[in-house]
Amino acid sequence: MGLSGTLYRQLQKISGKQNCTREKEDLLCYAYDSTGTCFLPDAVIFPGSEKEVSRILKFASKERLIVVPRGTGSGMTGGAVPVKGGLVLVTTRMNKIFDVDENNLIVRVQPGVIVADIHKIAEQKGLFYPPDPSSSSVCTIGGNIGECAGGPKAVKYGVTRDYVLGLRAVLPSGEVIQTGVSTAKGVAGYDLTRLIVGSEGTLAVVTEITLKLLPKPDAVKTMAVFFDSMQMAAKTVSNIMREAVVPRCVEYLDEACLHLVQESLSFELPRGIKALLIIELDGDMADVEKDAKKIKELCLSYGAMEVMVAKDQTEAQKLWDARKALSPVLYKIATNKINEDIVVPIDKIPEMVQVTQDLQKKFGLKVVSFGHAGDGNIHCNIMYHKADKDESKRAQKAVDELFEATLNLGGTITGEHGVGITKIKYLPMEIGTTQIELMKGIKKVFDPQNILNPGKIFC
Amino acid sequence: MGLSGTLYRQLQKISGKQNCTREKEDLLCYAYDSTGTCFLPDAVIFPGSEKEVSRILKFASKERLIVVPRGTGSGMTGGAVPVKGGLVLVTTRMNKIFDVDENNLIVRVQPGVIVADIHKIAEQKGLFYPPDPSSSSVCTIGGNIGECAGGPKAVKYGVTRDYVLGLRAVLPSGEVIQTGVSTAKGVAGYDLTRLIVGSEGTLAVVTEITLKLLPKPDAVKTMAVFFDSMQMAAKTVSNIMREAVVPRCVEYLDEACLHLVQESLSFELPRGIKALLIIELDGDMADVEKDAKKIKELCLSYGAMEVMVAKDQTEAQKLWDARKALSPVLYKIATNKINEDIVVPIDKIPEMVQVTQDLQKKFGLKVVSFGHAGDGNIHCNIMYHKADKDESKRAQKAVDELFEATLNLGGTITGEHGVGITKIKYLPMEIGTTQIELMKGIKKVFDPQNILNPGKIFC
Repeated sequence: MGLSGTLYRQLQKISGKQNCTREKEDLLCYAYDSTGTCFLPDAVIFPGSEKEVSRILKFASKERLIVVPRGTGSGMTGGAVPVKGGLVLVTTRMNKIFDVDENNLIVRVQPGVIVADIHKIAEQKGLFYPPDPSSSSVCTIGGNIGECAGGPKAVKYGVTRDYVLGLRAVLPSGEVIQTGVSTAKGVAGYDLTRLIVGSEGTLAVVTEITLKLLPKPDAVKTMAVFFDSMQMAAKTVSNIMREAVVPRCVEYLDEACLHLVQESLSFELPRGIKALLIIELDGDMADVEKDAKKIKELCLSYGAMEVMVAKDQTEAQKLWDARKALSPVLYKIATNKINEDIVVPIDKIPEMVQVTQDLQKKFGLKVVSFGHAGDGNIHCNIMYHKADKDESKRAQKAVDELFEATLNLGGTITGEHGVGITKIKYLPMEIGTTQIELMKGIKKVFDPQNILNPGKIFC
Repeated sequence: MGLSGTLYRQLQKISGKQNCTREKEDLLCYAYDSTGTCFLPDAVIFPGSEKEVSRILKFASKERLIVVPRGTGSGMTGGAVPVKGGLVLVTTRMNKIFDVDENNLIVRVQPGVIVADIHKIAEQKGLFYPPDPSSSSVCTIGGNIGECAGGPKAVKYGVTRDYVLGLRAVLPSGEVIQTGVSTAKGVAGYDLTRLIVGSEGTLAVVTEITLKLLPKPDAVKTMAVFFDSMQMAAKTVSNIMREAVVPRCVEYLDEACLHLVQESLSFELPRGIKALLIIELDGDMADVEKDAKKIKELCLSYGAMEVMVAKDQTEAQKLWDARKALSPVLYKIATNKINEDIVVPIDKIPEMVQVTQDLQKKFGLKVVSFGHAGDGNIHCNIMYHKADKDESKRAQKAVDELFEATLNLGGTITGEHGVGITKIKYLPMEIGTTQIELMKGIKKVFDPQNILNPGKIFC
């Protein structure tokens, strides 16, 4: 579509010259996300307030200019990539944490706030914000809202959706809406809050978020559980989840992952290890000690080789650092990866593990798995070299079969990364055309001109 | 609109003669809900399957016949009342519990299942379904989905919305959709599941629900905490909620309530009592004992007259029976009540208590309050005699002021009862016209002919 000099100058007037650019080197920085997909926008704008966001969208609406909202671009499915060009609206300047309301256990933040900063400020007040995607040190809460991010603690504490009490957001028309409540409950009309959460920036640009916080648990205990069989690890997860002690995290790393992270760990991996579970418990000190003992015994009775309880926070942190580094470190295996975040019912994890091993053999590709096993959410990475056309084709076919198997097991093709552009073609396999038509209808209600992040989810 | 003999006979063909009626005495039974509002439908139908629901709606769509879905009619805001006549579709024959999947902690049920039956079947398997409205022994899960019901355990465990993983539902066109997942997580497209939850039967008729269950806590401890000042009780709630021990229930009963339920209690109320908190903890036995001690000490330090810990399940049950009986027993005070379920931020409960006391004085009406104080959700009952026109007017004015005060305190006009018909006029005060227009747009996407439960929420 391009952007005329006149339009560009008008945009500059809204946010100030220094907060609007169309220099090629700037455009490149806002052309991609973690998928590595790259589409150049026509311009990039950095509004400093809700008022500016509103003026930008009103202007875009009038001029039929495409607007793609974006945080820090750590998304996994291309949600923030400007596939049809237009204006990338970056929220990073809107990074105020307004107030932590300790009496009511809520915090109000702007969309550009880094998620780890919410963790920190909550902790300083003795509170706790559980959603914690691996990218939490770089990703924005706005992006987390867009994709309904999860992370390891979702097992016990749920996902972003469960912590968003209310939103302020700007519609494509420029109108500002306020949804939800600042209270623990509320059912005044349709649930627009949770409709916007997970809508991948296609319905409105979120400008303020009211998040629920929890009292911070007194103690946390982290343990590493080693297995000499992937199947046995998977079965242990499914068994543990039936116990009255709900761990806050049950993470899974397969053998390939372990090789990659070995050097970051503070301990030697036992010989013959095929899988590792990271299990974390929280609660008050005495409970956590007792529960850890119980879980340890359970794991050993299910065939674990060894259980190592982290002796302090530093040791636990090393384990988590290794786990969190996994996604980028995979590039040591191949230049490219297709990272899918499938979810299956917990008791189907062993079968899913088998599926990934079979795919690996069938397509002659490395398939590396890790993830949030406690809720059946496996990040399954198909590694390939893009330059090798045959390998690329095989990788794509492996994805097709992976999704088919996932749905056959009663699962979903995306647990927390969203559909974006990478899963558009697979969405109808999961949800059917009638549902997609409803979604398109809803999109039209919010965005009749289709100017807000077009080409996503259902195209 | 009426219903011609031809149309009626065609409806009878779908569900069988015995499952469709337009006898006056039958119509009367399905004309009302707990608000006491009464509008006669033209016919009542009791489908036995999703297929029949689909055929009914397809037929209704073709004939532009209004359809009002209904469970057992225990709703508090008129959601199931056929204000514009038409066909009441009663789900009570669709009352199968398909399976409790103990491995994945889920249960699939039909909409006509009584909520208490879900509690029971979950408990038999060592599992736990937390949402528990006071009407749980009579209300259906379909109605709970429609209104996003809560109940006392929402403090710790959240509301119906938080337990609905997926739905099957029939659109007004007769098309069947399947939303959400059978897994712990899922973000494939817009969140239609949570859009339908709380939509008060205006978007689709739910035919199957996949609910999340939790492992059943090992032990429960219930205590009654007595106060000689309402303000002190309210402040205690706000203080307790900041502790790391989150009770599963923190219920509040004011002095008027206590007089009403006194005879059902198994203990004498202390002289001078002005308010009672019912606090319930759950977890493993040792934790619960320890936490109960801590909470007891806290309450005493905040000025409680006395704390009585229920010595067994029977004593605890008596306390809950008294609490659950409150809503109907209020009619001892006056022939009519306006029952509002406002929510305010927890630290505003003391102010809200003051507001209700002030309203009582100002309008010369008895205002009785009880409810789920732990999440700021107060069921505020304005008692009056409908036959007394002046009293009725004053009651209505008191509601206006109650809502105004609630919103001024940062609250919401409905925590768990919905908007239905009784709060239509107040909704714009809370959410504004832009949001209402979006909701109307969404309604049109699902129900272009406005045949499904018209005249509700935003009219």
